[in-house]
Amino acid sequence: MEHLPVSLEDVQAAAERVKAFAYRTPIYFSDAWSSITGAEAYLKLECYQPIRAFKIRGAANKLVQLNPNERKLGVVAASSGNHGLAVAYVAKRLGIPAKIVVPTTAVSAKVEAIEEQGATVFPCGTLGRQRIEKALKIAEETGAVFIHSFDDLDVIAGQGTVGLEIVQDLPEVDSVVVPVGGGGLISGIAVAVKSTKPSVRVVGVQAEGAASMYESIRQDKPVVLDRVDTIADGLSPGEAGRYTFEIARKLVDSIILVSDNEIRDATMSLLDKSHVLAEPSGAAGLAAAKKLGLRQGEKVVFVVSGGNISRKVLQGLICSQ
Amino acid sequence: MEHLPVSLEDVQAAAERVKAFAYRTPIYFSDAWSSITGAEAYLKLECYQPIRAFKIRGAANKLVQLNPNERKLGVVAASSGNHGLAVAYVAKRLGIPAKIVVPTTAVSAKVEAIEEQGATVFPCGTLGRQRIEKALKIAEETGAVFIHSFDDLDVIAGQGTVGLEIVQDLPEVDSVVVPVGGGGLISGIAVAVKSTKPSVRVVGVQAEGAASMYESIRQDKPVVLDRVDTIADGLSPGEAGRYTFEIARKLVDSIILVSDNEIRDATMSLLDKSHVLAEPSGAAGLAAAKKLGLRQGEKVVFVVSGGNISRKVLQGLICSQ
Repeated sequence: MEHLPVSLEDVQAAAERVKAFAYRTPIYFSDAWSSITGAEAYLKLECYQPIRAFKIRGAANKLVQLNPNERKLGVVAASSGNHGLAVAYVAKRLGIPAKIVVPTTAVSAKVEAIEEQGATVFPCGTLGRQRIEKALKIAEETGAVFIHSFDDLDVIAGQGTVGLEIVQDLPEVDSVVVPVGGGGLISGIAVAVKSTKPSVRVVGVQAEGAASMYESIRQDKPVVLDRVDTIADGLSPGEAGRYTFEIARKLVDSIILVSDNEIRDATMSLLDKSHVLAEPSGAAGLAAAKKLGLRQGEKVVFVVSGGNISRKVLQGLICSQ
Repeated sequence: MEHLPVSLEDVQAAAERVKAFAYRTPIYFSDAWSSITGAEAYLKLECYQPIRAFKIRGAANKLVQLNPNERKLGVVAASSGNHGLAVAYVAKRLGIPAKIVVPTTAVSAKVEAIEEQGATVFPCGTLGRQRIEKALKIAEETGAVFIHSFDDLDVIAGQGTVGLEIVQDLPEVDSVVVPVGGGGLISGIAVAVKSTKPSVRVVGVQAEGAASMYESIRQDKPVVLDRVDTIADGLSPGEAGRYTFEIARKLVDSIILVSDNEIRDATMSLLDKSHVLAEPSGAAGLAAAKKLGLRQGEKVVFVVSGGNISRKVLQGLICSQ
């Protein structure tokens, strides 16, 4: 584990900081997903967090470490989704002013949820790049600290606490399957899991229409996609981070691609069979359930990373059935 | 607390037994429900249990205490819902054979979920009374122990562990709001909460079309309703238990009735605003949110008791909107 920008010790330190904000989510054995995979399947339910996504961990680990002057100047993030909500939620509890840049096309319910946490929302453009530029500009002008949604060492270490809990709560784990967007979650988990138990297979799952980490590993350099197209909006940054790529290329065993239809089916199956409400991005790991080539008796943990599904997406899923 | 059939000590002992099976579910502060109630609102999310309902607690407290001979002869319960699933789930983990009597009209997904836990299912009639008679007959013929879904002292003590967690995790609690069917959950919670902090108001919420406990308290005797009619199938036993009535009449501050439309709206609001999937019975407490007369700053905990909603009911809720 030498030469990696995040260490097991970083993740362990994050666990101490994160526990005041994030919940130690359960790992449940699932009969239904065991049947589907032919293995012994478990769900790590990050959709049960207070903000219903793992992003609360990275945000907490980052914001807790800000010094008094930084806290006074506040934080800024670019995300209408779970990262924006997480930063707003943690900032409110620490008394830190938060500015969140969201696309002009953001769903109003998401914007309201962020505003409910007392953050100021700045609508800007429709592309991720535009929002990050705007957020960096706000940071420069106001002194607020920019909080990247994945390519930040403290954020990665925070997300890694998911992996720490998995190896602690299920020491016999053989494989961990993780939805991948920018790679913050899987790189943190990989550090925690591989440092503790190197034999564990860490598998990423990415949407075909947003295969940034898959392509980065294939081309052995962090790539930026020209366009992304997937129902899994939480997995759509369209690029791998510098740090997340560096970690993932060394520690992640494979990245599997899934189609939007497979993601939809997984989201529906999780709802129907397990009565767990996940957003499509959160259920993406399960969309690869049949492609993993699992052995009978193998203990596999699927990280269900988020549950913030909009009514419109939910209607699209269940009303046509 | 004298002269009550379940004591705080019973609930405390149950907590020790139950913890190997049930999850210590989170209590989350809710901005959305605080706005709606005008108070400081929290959700106690029993829908996050492994079987997605509090019933796992009572079943665990009951089954763990069976002696080796009873365990060998097995258990029998009458319920196609969460109680049946809970008994099957706990029995499987203890290696106890389980027989579950379900209505001939039971939804196939519910029957499958019970069978997935290795229990034998006996379809019988359409009325609760018929199923209980059948279960008692099976108990008599086979020696299996009948597990009542609410009117059993060990079951009540097990459900009471929800109340213990509430006062431990939120010691400043002022009110607890609980969906009521047969009264197992509210009577257990009332014992735990009132014994620990007598000033806490314990409020039950019952469906207008299944107001058995409401009527029992009004008439000061346990009543059996001629018919029940509500979307909240988990609240439909149509009668108060002997023990649950005895406890509720002494400890419960009030029972509020809600309509099916109010229950539907609460289930939808919980899904939309909090992204928490509850079954209508589980969200019934929230259906009374505006009728509670809460003071500003008052800390109120809504117990969201279950999340096993069928696809059909979910479609009925969200596809017509």
